[in-house]
Formats: sequence, structure tokens, C-alpha cells
Amino acid sequence: MIQFYSPDVRKTNMLDSSESQHCVKVLRKKEGEKIYVTDGEGTRFECLIVKGDTKGVKVSVLSEEKITKNWIGTLSLIVAPTKNADRMAWLVEKCTEIGIDRIIFVKCDRSERKTVNTDRLIRNAASAMNQSLKTIMPVLEVLDFKDILTLNGYKYFGYCSPEVERFKFVDAYKNVIKQFITEGKKTDTVSTQGPDVVIAIGPEGDFSQDEVCSLLKSGYRAVTFGDERLRTETAAMYSVAAFHITNDLFF
Amino acid sequence: MIQFYSPDVRKTNMLDSSESQHCVKVLRKKEGEKIYVTDGEGTRFECLIVKGDTKGVKVSVLSEEKITKNWIGTLSLIVAPTKNADRMAWLVEKCTEIGIDRIIFVKCDRSERKTVNTDRLIRNAASAMNQSLKTIMPVLEVLDFKDILTLNGYKYFGYCSPEVERFKFVDAYKNVIKQFITEGKKTDTVSTQGPDVVIAIGPEGDFSQDEVCSLLKSGYRAVTFGDERLRTETAAMYSVAAFHITNDLFF
Repeated sequence: MIQFYSPDVRKTNMLDSSESQHCVKVLRKKEGEKIYVTDGEGTRFECLIVKGDTKGVKVSVLSEEKITKNWIGTLSLIVAPTKNADRMAWLVEKCTEIGIDRIIFVKCDRSERKTVNTDRLIRNAASAMNQSLKTIMPVLEVLDFKDILTLNGYKYFGYCSPEVERFKFVDAYKNVIKQFITEGKKTDTVSTQGPDVVIAIGPEGDFSQDEVCSLLKSGYRAVTFGDERLRTETAAMYSVAAFHITNDLFF
Repeated sequence: MIQFYSPDVRKTNMLDSSESQHCVKVLRKKEGEKIYVTDGEGTRFECLIVKGDTKGVKVSVLSEEKITKNWIGTLSLIVAPTKNADRMAWLVEKCTEIGIDRIIFVKCDRSERKTVNTDRLIRNAASAMNQSLKTIMPVLEVLDFKDILTLNGYKYFGYCSPEVERFKFVDAYKNVIKQFITEGKKTDTVSTQGPDVVIAIGPEGDFSQDEVCSLLKSGYRAVTFGDERLRTETAAMYSVAAFHITNDLFF
């Protein structure tokens, strides 16, 4: 199965120029051939190529299938951009393959990088989603630190220093899942679909004291993902794995 | 804390040329300064630089500390080399940061790459170990497929096709940990230190039918790490995370 990404395929019946190039030039798909297209919101469409134009492949939709997500609730990862852009590209690729709803890059006091090229990262995410036959395209965005404080959900931040009381993320999230299974009802942080989780990972120099205070005041809990010092992008990807594996074990 | 790697530091009191360059040229460490050196086998030495030579830094050992591993037993990862060498380097880096005892590259029927530059990968592993202040340097090696069949331990291989009965790795390993805690005794596969685990991840085209038969006959169990199709190096790194997270939850 070969999958392409077109968020508006249902309305436009088109692939954009980048996906069309890949379809016609690289994979040499021709008119009359069948391809699969996802809208990145959980639906996969079986399509027929009507016009194999490298600038915009035109398709007709034969059927559609809603793909069930293999995790409950939503997972949002907040991460300080790394100095090396390739490490961010890698992080977006891996998180998309494993499964994630939203990746937020946030400039922290100790961030070494202040700008993020989301266009490139969106292409990385689309490619990883298609490659792994996922149908969830994460929302990628850049926010100011103050804006992450108002997010809703079960909120955690990884913190290296023991000067703040910390819990193991897996234990905390395990209890959230168990509570959801027991209560199974809609509350502020638990929708009927499952608990929404937000995980924040700081820069190499960690969150500053001011940031830690703001996070704690805004309902974020300090957690660890193991005893050791991990690079920012390793910690971020490890936290996403921890979310999924805890889901797998307890849901 | 800045850490360097020298497997024989206890005997030689020296760093090799690559670590010496890094110490003297990049980090500008000088005679009389303190550094930390690990042997990659769990011990970290506090050292004084006696001679800051870029070809071979000479140190005297002030004290040593045995660092407890944060996982039980041993973890060996078997993985088919990826076509793209950078993806292997990345895999070695991430697994070393998270913690692993042994990484074995194995040429499979459907491997796209037949050669592996272990020298480069050893440098990647040493750098990741030092960066994350780990003291376990994974053994890196290249084996023939037949040689992985005779390894000891609880053996698993990731398999994509449902034609073979598969278990969730996390459930299988959880039970192994529980058994170890209950019995706590030495058996063929459970040493007094903990159960030894071997995880094998095939190439992009997966293990061949012949390989699957051989693995099953040799005591490997087919497992999944989730429902989706992951790239080889993503599956490998995800399996290492699953090992650690299950450890964290149940040990």
C-alpha cells in the first residue's frame, strides 16, 4: 500500500505539488492506477488517479475508511527547539511514526535556537506518516512559553534536578488511565475519548527556575523518564514512547 | 561533569588519541584539571590530568565509583543494518543514551546493506555514553544470522505479519519480570542479576519465511510493539524504550 497526504482531498480531489511530484516522478504512478490518500485526520481514501500531472495529481475517491487511533485521548508534546535542525527533523519523524497529535516548539529562557522552519518539519511529518501508514498528521506549531501554560489536559514536564519533587511519568500516567477506565466519564481533563496528555521537554540546559515556577503554578507536574541525562530530542521521543507503552500495558 | 571513555584507564592511565583531542583541543582541558573517565563497564573514575598531550592525555586516578545500572539483567538488540548509514549511527546513539548492553548487526535475507562500519558506530556510542553520563558502553558487533540463533536469554523478534501468532512484547516481558521477582533464583535464562533479554528487529522487508522458522525453532517468540509499520531503526529504538519502561513499571 502506498499512501499520500492531502488534507482537503475530499473537497479538492487533488494532491499538492510536492505529493504529486513524488507520486508521478518518483513512484511513476499513472492515470487509472489506484493510490491511497489520507487527510491526516484519521481517514484513508482509496483513490483512482484521473490525471497524473506533476503539478497537481487529480484523483477520484472510490471509498473511505476511518482508521482507529491506537492510543486514547490526545498526546501533545512541547519541546524546546534543538540547536541542530536535523535533530528536530528526526524527532518529528519518529514521533509521527509512533503516533502523536500535536508537537509544539517553545522558545525557553535557555533555548539555543530561536527560529523553527515548520515548513520543512511538516514535510518530514507527512513523509513519516505515509511511510508508517499512519493517518494522524500532527499539528506542528511554535508557541511562546506563556501560551503553553494555558493548555488543558494532564500536564507534565520533564525535569532533571531533584530540587523539585518529581514523579515517574509512567506511574502518573498509569493512574490516569486506571482512573479513566474506572470512571469513564467526561470531566475537565478526561473527555469521553480518553485523557488528554501534555508533556513538556526543556532545552539542554533545562527549564529555568522562573519557568519551573510558572509550570508548577499552571498545573504541570514535574516528572522523570528514568534516572539519566538524555539529549532534548531523545527525552522527547522517549516520553512519547512511554506514553504509548503505558497505553499498551494498561488500556 | 565532563566524562571521557577509556576502557583500560585503570591499567594505562591514558585516554586514546580521539578522546585526547576532544579533551585538550575542543574542551581545552589542562594539566592539573579534574575530569571523569569511564571504563564503559559500569565504573566512573575521578581523574587528574597529569599530561595534556593531544596524542594521549595522561591521568592519575583519584577515586572510582561503581554506577548501578538502571535496568535488570542484560539487553541485547539484534538489528538488520539499514540502507542509510546515518540511521544506524542515530540508532546506536539513542540506544546508548537510553541504556543497552549489546547491539548486534545481522545480515538478513532481505537486508539492503551488507557491510557495517563498526569503527564509526563505536565512536557514536562512546560520545552518546559520555554525553548522557552513562557508564555502560554497548558491545557492538556484526554476526551472521545463524549465530544469533544460539544466543541465550528470553528471546523475541518483532514481526509485522499476523500469519505467525504474536504477543505484545510489553506483556511478555512484564511476565518475565514478575516471575523473576517471585522466584528470584538462578535458572537457565534468569541470572541472579535479572533476566537477560534479546530483541531482534528485521530489515524493512521483514524477516524471510526461512528466517522466521529458524527463529521460532531456536526459542525466539514473535512479538509486536504496537499495531503500525515502523522503520527498522524506529522499531529498534522503540523496542529498547519498551524494555526500559516495562522495567520502570514492574521492577
